[in-house]
Amino acid sequence: MQDHITPRRVVILGGGFAGLFAARALRRSPVAVTVVDRRAHHLFQPLLYQCASGILSEGQIAQPLRAVLRRHHNVSCVLAEATDVDVGAQVVHLRRPDGGALDLPYDDLIVGVGMRQSYFGHDEFAAHAPGMKTLHDALDIRRRIYRAFEMAETASDAGERQEWLTFALVGGGPTGVELAGQIREIAGHTLDREFRKTDSAQARVLLFEGSGEVLGAFGHPLALRAARTLRSLGVELHLSTRVTEVDVHGLTVEGQDGATTRFDARTVLWTAGVEAPPIAAALARATGAGQDRAGRIFVEPDLTVPGHPEIHVTGDVMSLNKLPGLAEVAMQSGAYAGRAVRHAVEGRTKQPKPFRYLDLGSAAYISRGKAVVKAGPLHLSGAVGWLAWLFIHLAFLTGFRSRLGAVLSWSVSFVTSSRRERAFTMPDADTSAGRAQSAPPPP
Amino acid sequence: MQDHITPRRVVILGGGFAGLFAARALRRSPVAVTVVDRRAHHLFQPLLYQCASGILSEGQIAQPLRAVLRRHHNVSCVLAEATDVDVGAQVVHLRRPDGGALDLPYDDLIVGVGMRQSYFGHDEFAAHAPGMKTLHDALDIRRRIYRAFEMAETASDAGERQEWLTFALVGGGPTGVELAGQIREIAGHTLDREFRKTDSAQARVLLFEGSGEVLGAFGHPLALRAARTLRSLGVELHLSTRVTEVDVHGLTVEGQDGATTRFDARTVLWTAGVEAPPIAAALARATGAGQDRAGRIFVEPDLTVPGHPEIHVTGDVMSLNKLPGLAEVAMQSGAYAGRAVRHAVEGRTKQPKPFRYLDLGSAAYISRGKAVVKAGPLHLSGAVGWLAWLFIHLAFLTGFRSRLGAVLSWSVSFVTSSRRERAFTMPDADTSAGRAQSAPPPP
Repeated sequence: MQDHITPRRVVILGGGFAGLFAARALRRSPVAVTVVDRRAHHLFQPLLYQCASGILSEGQIAQPLRAVLRRHHNVSCVLAEATDVDVGAQVVHLRRPDGGALDLPYDDLIVGVGMRQSYFGHDEFAAHAPGMKTLHDALDIRRRIYRAFEMAETASDAGERQEWLTFALVGGGPTGVELAGQIREIAGHTLDREFRKTDSAQARVLLFEGSGEVLGAFGHPLALRAARTLRSLGVELHLSTRVTEVDVHGLTVEGQDGATTRFDARTVLWTAGVEAPPIAAALARATGAGQDRAGRIFVEPDLTVPGHPEIHVTGDVMSLNKLPGLAEVAMQSGAYAGRAVRHAVEGRTKQPKPFRYLDLGSAAYISRGKAVVKAGPLHLSGAVGWLAWLFIHLAFLTGFRSRLGAVLSWSVSFVTSSRRERAFTMPDADTSAGRAQSAPPPP
Repeated sequence: MQDHITPRRVVILGGGFAGLFAARALRRSPVAVTVVDRRAHHLFQPLLYQCASGILSEGQIAQPLRAVLRRHHNVSCVLAEATDVDVGAQVVHLRRPDGGALDLPYDDLIVGVGMRQSYFGHDEFAAHAPGMKTLHDALDIRRRIYRAFEMAETASDAGERQEWLTFALVGGGPTGVELAGQIREIAGHTLDREFRKTDSAQARVLLFEGSGEVLGAFGHPLALRAARTLRSLGVELHLSTRVTEVDVHGLTVEGQDGATTRFDARTVLWTAGVEAPPIAAALARATGAGQDRAGRIFVEPDLTVPGHPEIHVTGDVMSLNKLPGLAEVAMQSGAYAGRAVRHAVEGRTKQPKPFRYLDLGSAAYISRGKAVVKAGPLHLSGAVGWLAWLFIHLAFLTGFRSRLGAVLSWSVSFVTSSRRERAFTMPDADTSAGRAQSAPPPP
């Protein structure tokens, strides 16, 4: 047994799937776990696009971390961002939301900080092309999608109207494909007969992808079927293209032949790539660990950093055997790291088996009643794929109320095409922040 | 019958209760109605505090205006802000969200733009003390409430922790009272056992009110009962006080005797007063109409502006017989103005009866199972008041799905004290906006 006065301190960086599953694996261990996250919620990222498109509310896909972990009596949650790690002193340096510093000593460190959107060195694109990684991003995208149709309705001429009715999606992975399907559904069904001057169904959705196919990770047969489904929905696919410029009126892309083409589109959404957050580089510097091109940290087969058996890297930010950045990998690697700490606490001396990812499959929703699912030798698409998608997401959605709420929202949305969460906010001069800005400085 | 080529043009400024009920009254008239609003949604303002406190989602209290009015085939919706009125040319000048100008000619103008939060000349308070008028405000307040408890948990000492656990509410009207009750409930029940270092139940809620009682509009007996209920919930009432200073660490108030007191509170919320938005002053200038101290426009008994029978002012921004700024007044005055236009279109020459407000009562929710309701001679409080509150709000909530959703959310929240919509966003360096800001300028 551990000394109860000073139990072994386990710090988990990140409250995503990896961090959550690591904390759960330690539930019955006599350790003091601290989960650090920059947000106060655990986000069910695979459904983020449904929050952006107005089917689900924030609360349906994001639960407070401390509510999820309430019954884990050995877990504390800290709202802060990790800025650096002192691997000698075994201390993580944190920054609180108000800028204050906080130091957290650890005996074991489990890193599951995830990846953030990458603009491939063009961060200036971000102002015109938001990414899709956080709840904040999703609400921003919701605002941009629905506002675009509003702007089209009051456009001064047909040219401007068409610009507002053109949506460009950069990136042909699951998120880009899902968003493309959602926007076509919104345009063709949700907004049906709501506009007087605008035919919302005329909205163009352009999907740009650098490689030769969408959903390449699902394998060639499913990628082909996904492309066919997207085209039948009216999504215009531009494969083997690279975005060279984004501004408020649209984007410029370069084809394989080097020729550039300009597309006018007032809404550009970016799901093209990911990169590690700054703490990954800090950890690599501190430990001497290597990083792949996107900044993921190379780990040993037991998910520890070379030379640092007390530091585990899990989830999307871990680089091991080119495992994909999927929720399922994050869950399994997080649970593995948590178990490794538990076994050490229990005094097991046996060399742990290397981490092995059990591929339970992956799924992408394209539109109502259509999804592609790959699970081992199984390749599903169309309605069968959609049923499999439904089952998988219900099984993994955190918490019973979220499941019930999602099923209700999906049922209504599926039957009526309506979306309950269409309300978007616009900070303007009348909000408190706007008022304070325009207020004269106090004397 | 009107000429079908150029039907009479009715412009409605504001898609709140007044505007919506005006549009509905014109549903079967051969007129072309345009509803102009700065937001794309109709907001059920009486439940805004429940969105702020995490019980309801945005979509449960805000429906897209054009979805609400979809079956009104003579109605168009325009997302824009009215900046001025040319009463000679009968044209409203609008500004679109992108800054573009738009002119809208009218034959009849119905103004129902509502009121905004007033800081009594101290707009600089707004940065530290958000108001509660818009969905944007509600999400801001949700963020501040839940973040405060998070900050308390990582506070560096007991003094800072207590500052984060102190919530100051300025204004003892329904919104202030409702928020006070909500925060006490969150502290005592919702967050129960979620924190390790912080006892959330120790949160102090201070309510500051300029007059001698809270909910004064409900009459002395109910005001007394509301004060008793609030005190029993642990809300500290500071009556007959005036706020003289607000900053990031708290506020300073002056009592009736002129003595000032300082209160440390990291969260200050402002519900103390209202003022007319700038378009009211523009309309008064253009028509020569008078305004009361808060900027409301004085109207004739038929709700028109003196000398301008084609301009109707309705809802909160209308000044007539000191009618209160209640949803019910807005609905009835909006419907009255709509009917007046309909009668004119139908060629009725009879002098219309003056507008008479039928007081159906008013209600304020204090906490679980406790509300005060005043309806004519009826004064209800406690559990009976709460049942009446429930019935009234369900009856008026727009749309069947909102009602069903609200009942489900209320049931779960009432029984379990949990709140589904606790997730809040924090724009940080990693969001698209943050990334773009820190990006180097393009060459």
